[in-house]
Amino acid sequence: MLDMENIKNNLSAVLHKPLDIRLENRPVRNPAKGEVLLSMRSVGICGTDIEVWHSGNAGGFGILPTVMGHEGSGVICAIGEGVTNVKVGDRVALMGGDSCEKCDLCKDGKFNLCSEWGSNFPWDFLARYAIHTRAEQCFKLADHVSFDEGALAEPLAVATRTCTRAGITVGDNVLVCGAGSVGLLCMMVSKAMGAATVCVTDINQSKLDLAKKLGANFTVLATGSSSDVKNKVTDAIGCMPDRSVECSAAEASVRAAILSTKSGGTVTLVGLSNNEMTLPIVNAATREVDILGVLAYTRKDYASAVSLMATGRVNVKPLITHTFKLEDTLKAYELVKNQEDGVVKTIIRCNDFE
Amino acid sequence: MLDMENIKNNLSAVLHKPLDIRLENRPVRNPAKGEVLLSMRSVGICGTDIEVWHSGNAGGFGILPTVMGHEGSGVICAIGEGVTNVKVGDRVALMGGDSCEKCDLCKDGKFNLCSEWGSNFPWDFLARYAIHTRAEQCFKLADHVSFDEGALAEPLAVATRTCTRAGITVGDNVLVCGAGSVGLLCMMVSKAMGAATVCVTDINQSKLDLAKKLGANFTVLATGSSSDVKNKVTDAIGCMPDRSVECSAAEASVRAAILSTKSGGTVTLVGLSNNEMTLPIVNAATREVDILGVLAYTRKDYASAVSLMATGRVNVKPLITHTFKLEDTLKAYELVKNQEDGVVKTIIRCNDFE
Amino acid sequence: MLDMENIKNNLSAVLHKPLDIRLENRPVRNPAKGEVLLSMRSVGICGTDIEVWHSGNAGGFGILPTVMGHEGSGVICAIGEGVTNVKVGDRVALMGGDSCEKCDLCKDGKFNLCSEWGSNFPWDFLARYAIHTRAEQCFKLADHVSFDEGALAEPLAVATRTCTRAGITVGDNVLVCGAGSVGLLCMMVSKAMGAATVCVTDINQSKLDLAKKLGANFTVLATGSSSDVKNKVTDAIGCMPDRSVECSAAEASVRAAILSTKSGGTVTLVGLSNNEMTLPIVNAATREVDILGVLAYTRKDYASAVSLMATGRVNVKPLITHTFKLEDTLKAYELVKNQEDGVVKTIIRCNDFE
Amino acid sequence: MLDMENIKNNLSAVLHKPLDIRLENRPVRNPAKGEVLLSMRSVGICGTDIEVWHSGNAGGFGILPTVMGHEGSGVICAIGEGVTNVKVGDRVALMGGDSCEKCDLCKDGKFNLCSEWGSNFPWDFLARYAIHTRAEQCFKLADHVSFDEGALAEPLAVATRTCTRAGITVGDNVLVCGAGSVGLLCMMVSKAMGAATVCVTDINQSKLDLAKKLGANFTVLATGSSSDVKNKVTDAIGCMPDRSVECSAAEASVRAAILSTKSGGTVTLVGLSNNEMTLPIVNAATREVDILGVLAYTRKDYASAVSLMATGRVNVKPLITHTFKLEDTLKAYELVKNQEDGVVKTIIRCNDFE
Repeated sequence: MLDMENIKNNLSAVLHKPLDIRLENRPVRNPAKGEVLLSMRSVGICGTDIEVWHSGNAGGFGILPTVMGHEGSGVICAIGEGVTNVKVGDRVALMGGDSCEKCDLCKDGKFNLCSEWGSNFPWDFLARYAIHTRAEQCFKLADHVSFDEGALAEPLAVATRTCTRAGITVGDNVLVCGAGSVGLLCMMVSKAMGAATVCVTDINQSKLDLAKKLGANFTVLATGSSSDVKNKVTDAIGCMPDRSVECSAAEASVRAAILSTKSGGTVTLVGLSNNEMTLPIVNAATREVDILGVLAYTRKDYASAVSLMATGRVNVKPLITHTFKLEDTLKAYELVKNQEDGVVKTIIRCNDFE
Repeated sequence: MLDMENIKNNLSAVLHKPLDIRLENRPVRNPAKGEVLLSMRSVGICGTDIEVWHSGNAGGFGILPTVMGHEGSGVICAIGEGVTNVKVGDRVALMGGDSCEKCDLCKDGKFNLCSEWGSNFPWDFLARYAIHTRAEQCFKLADHVSFDEGALAEPLAVATRTCTRAGITVGDNVLVCGAGSVGLLCMMVSKAMGAATVCVTDINQSKLDLAKKLGANFTVLATGSSSDVKNKVTDAIGCMPDRSVECSAAEASVRAAILSTKSGGTVTLVGLSNNEMTLPIVNAATREVDILGVLAYTRKDYASAVSLMATGRVNVKPLITHTFKLEDTLKAYELVKNQEDGVVKTIIRCNDFE
Repeated sequence: MLDMENIKNNLSAVLHKPLDIRLENRPVRNPAKGEVLLSMRSVGICGTDIEVWHSGNAGGFGILPTVMGHEGSGVICAIGEGVTNVKVGDRVALMGGDSCEKCDLCKDGKFNLCSEWGSNFPWDFLARYAIHTRAEQCFKLADHVSFDEGALAEPLAVATRTCTRAGITVGDNVLVCGAGSVGLLCMMVSKAMGAATVCVTDINQSKLDLAKKLGANFTVLATGSSSDVKNKVTDAIGCMPDRSVECSAAEASVRAAILSTKSGGTVTLVGLSNNEMTLPIVNAATREVDILGVLAYTRKDYASAVSLMATGRVNVKPLITHTFKLEDTLKAYELVKNQEDGVVKTIIRCNDFE
Repeated sequence: MLDMENIKNNLSAVLHKPLDIRLENRPVRNPAKGEVLLSMRSVGICGTDIEVWHSGNAGGFGILPTVMGHEGSGVICAIGEGVTNVKVGDRVALMGGDSCEKCDLCKDGKFNLCSEWGSNFPWDFLARYAIHTRAEQCFKLADHVSFDEGALAEPLAVATRTCTRAGITVGDNVLVCGAGSVGLLCMMVSKAMGAATVCVTDINQSKLDLAKKLGANFTVLATGSSSDVKNKVTDAIGCMPDRSVECSAAEASVRAAILSTKSGGTVTLVGLSNNEMTLPIVNAATREVDILGVLAYTRKDYASAVSLMATGRVNVKPLITHTFKLEDTLKAYELVKNQEDGVVKTIIRCNDFE
């Protein structure tokens, strides 16, 4: 057992109310049966974190006050009873989310669709130490994968699920709408799954430049009508894309994705925020262009993401543009909120060493 | 070869301009290579026929003037060179549609998605005699299947494709929105594919009564908001349906279908007409409820439809509520246009005998 | 809590060593957390029970001495802490099997493939009372479904998984090899899934007569070489079957199934016993006839089976040819062992009332 | 039209009877409707060519005497009426095979399973000039793809179909049995489809060394029993492979593949020759390890193969170990027949220039 007396300083980034994140010491406990205690290393920030910070509505991430952070990596420093998949000292990426494990969806491998998904598990990673209540959701990192990269296993799992649901296969031409971090990861995963070409759209040329640098075969500035965008996309690729992946959350972009996609193809939506959208639904339906959604990821998706990094099939390093110390959490959140050019993925390092 | 001299009277229902259908004699020719000449028997009328009649826009059905009718059955009375799949005297159902046979979609079995689908083949079935340019699209009817039923192979093929795309499988609870002829056929096909229960919605109680009589386990009058309908549906079934099939073409109904469907399920759209719809797309996407479309059918769907009737798995007879003689074509079209209660499927008999 | 003092007589059929089943009283305990206590009603006997009886090797069914019986139905008479899916008095069918719930296969919905499947759960149903350690594996029976039918939910779930894996869909012609109880159930499920026709083979004409009576479209006496059988099957159906389901466990029959199946189809094997088989593997591979296996069933399969009975899509009653009292367990086992004509499914009734 | 008078010298490699290939001039004709005339460049030799050479049984490749060669690339030098997909001067890879285009399999995109597949089309590529009777089966090569590489589009299409049928997806661990050219191509395609790791087995260490050099993560010398091989494979990977691809055609290797594969996985067989095999079929079936076959490829597979080369996802150059002039065809065939170490893919260049 860990000598908890020695863990006096568990500095944690705690959200108390909207826009009120405080850095404070929080108690550490021994891991119970099936749990592990982690010495946290890297925690990524995504759009959802910014929403929670602003709204105070932590949704699936627990009730206030709550420690922030759900994209994390760390080192196992204590294991609870019955834990066999990891041992003290293991470097791990942390799959989040929990579910009832009793409903038909859980029993069918779709734990991400369980109505209780994420409702019980406080994703409390932005701290010196954190408990993960489900040891089996800690995945070992290969030696050559850094903790910063490990923190990206979570968004990479989202991209993996997105591309898997999209049905991307060898020889496909793929359209990725939106060149934010999820869009860029989807581009990378598409290529890792055998896509012949990937065309990326965005309304921001500098993001497109980065997409090109990171491997996009074509980029299209998404100006003008949805039809205009469609025409530019098909001109760029030389044909309509087989599969489209929509990561921008903008209605105009979803419309362009539908119009652009080859008959019999798919448009997969990830990261939406506005519930209502007006869409050219007959265009989609009568060309059998299926509109698919994505929520988070399953265990298989997360395992695939970890494997893609371990085997070097996807290199997420170029996405990490900014890093901060835990003490500078607020600065990091401000940076991500402002969405300035050149900011792709921001990581907070929870401990000084590495 | 047929003695064409003896076929003087080829009475045909010809659309000359919007709302102008004339009954007139048209020439008959010998079938060319790969073609057959049919003595037509039964031709069904569907919503698309009414649209063509009103708009004069025959779309895939040829340019004006054109003989009407695309849901047909008949008897082979002459075959062209090289035809081996049917012989003179065979009773057949007539699969429509043609395609380029050269593009990747055609080569991949998706002839219904070919950009040339239906563009070359004049579906000219509403006449005493008709040429089918593709003999291999004539499917033999079982002895016990009447010509009237044979004319329903076409909409039954649409229902078969719809339920197949929907992924309906054994044990599923299915929601069918809209109790018109396609909705009723989808209900029947769902049950033939192993659905545990089928719940049918409509805004017309008399249609629901018929649905109930024809085998619907539950019916729901679709009044109130989409949420209200969802609640009534889940109350009726006892849970959310696994798969929804939308045949009403109404936006409110598509919305209700999305809200009603179990996470991880599908909403399949058939027979839409208004291109733009405002939909609760986040509700769909974040529950991975996929929105799928249907255009017509493939050869496999049509063959399955013919087989469902031959084996008695689906009995379409109760749908045939009205029959007319070819001379009374206009009366038949008027009846279908008015959508009065009690009118489900109207058939025109192209010849006097049977 | 149940007054266990009143349950003095828990007569149970206990296997002590090979061929040594004794009827004796066994203690009853209160159900623990997540468990239920059942007043057992009907328990079916299958080939596996006979093997266990003869070999004393209970495999996944526990170590000796062990209560026999794994196809059961009963009434809930006490529930453990936290059980919410059933209540005292509920009539239920009992899904067996357990698994680790931690491995990737379990997490992916394939609990039947878990390496620990069936290793911890003593399937002890052949008794007046039984504990089911997993309440969520008790499925409520519809009022009109008898306990005897409920005991058949288990083999029906096997048939459902078999036909699902086989990919049977609307319009298919299906070959079922072997007209024992699993073969007959596969025939019924095939039809419930939309098969156009089902052809059944067996080496026993009386079994074929029963198959015909229960709905087989065609039957073929499996005499002669595998090629002969193939010819008879294709003559009967009029073409090669799309899908074949092999339930006879005989090598000659597997060979005939491979030869018979249409290119691009499937041969699904259920209930094999001899590990080594010599097969015409090039014939299968170069026609892309896939050879698929089945182990038991998943939760979804079992739920579908219960639903098929509840909705009347499958009627298993005609399969129940013999019933015995619990006291006559040995007579029942002898009957099943001897495989006499006219014996399909034998049920033991664990309590006198119903 | 081409001035055929100027094509006096159409040197061709003609098989007259078993083991009797003669180099002789053959007439050239103008391409008919839908056909193209090619100035041939590179033609690969595979095991099937050697079999045809020895047996004189050209099977699907026409009747004797016949020009050899079915893996080819060339330059369009004349086009027939109605050809629009290619023009004179285009550099193309040549997809072979034909089919009836009328049967249900053809209409469903499975032209490779048509019973007439390959029966009408004389694959006559090993010559200065060749007619391709189906212009739409000529695929343009990217500028940077050489004719020698283009000749490998054909075996690469086989590998693409094999890996697609195997269901290889992102994160999979893949076992490839046999390190000949098809095995090596399957290894490359597996990686292009997102496989995490690929383990290659062979009985020849030098072939394994090449596999390692070309990207195999692990190699295993396939000595000892099938169980031994299984143990070595799982030791190398660290777990059982998700999918196995069998390219060796050896029964012992198929057995090892079955034993090695993870429950719920697939074993895909390509390039078998001995029809009868004795297999541990219960091991496969009760772990739901599916045994799948492959015949040739569909149009989609061939297009994917061309795309994999165009986009650089697969680099086939290192497989081309030997090249010969058309005049040295016999030397080339002898080399391939002897299967000496270091011979992977042998190409015959049909014209002097490039």
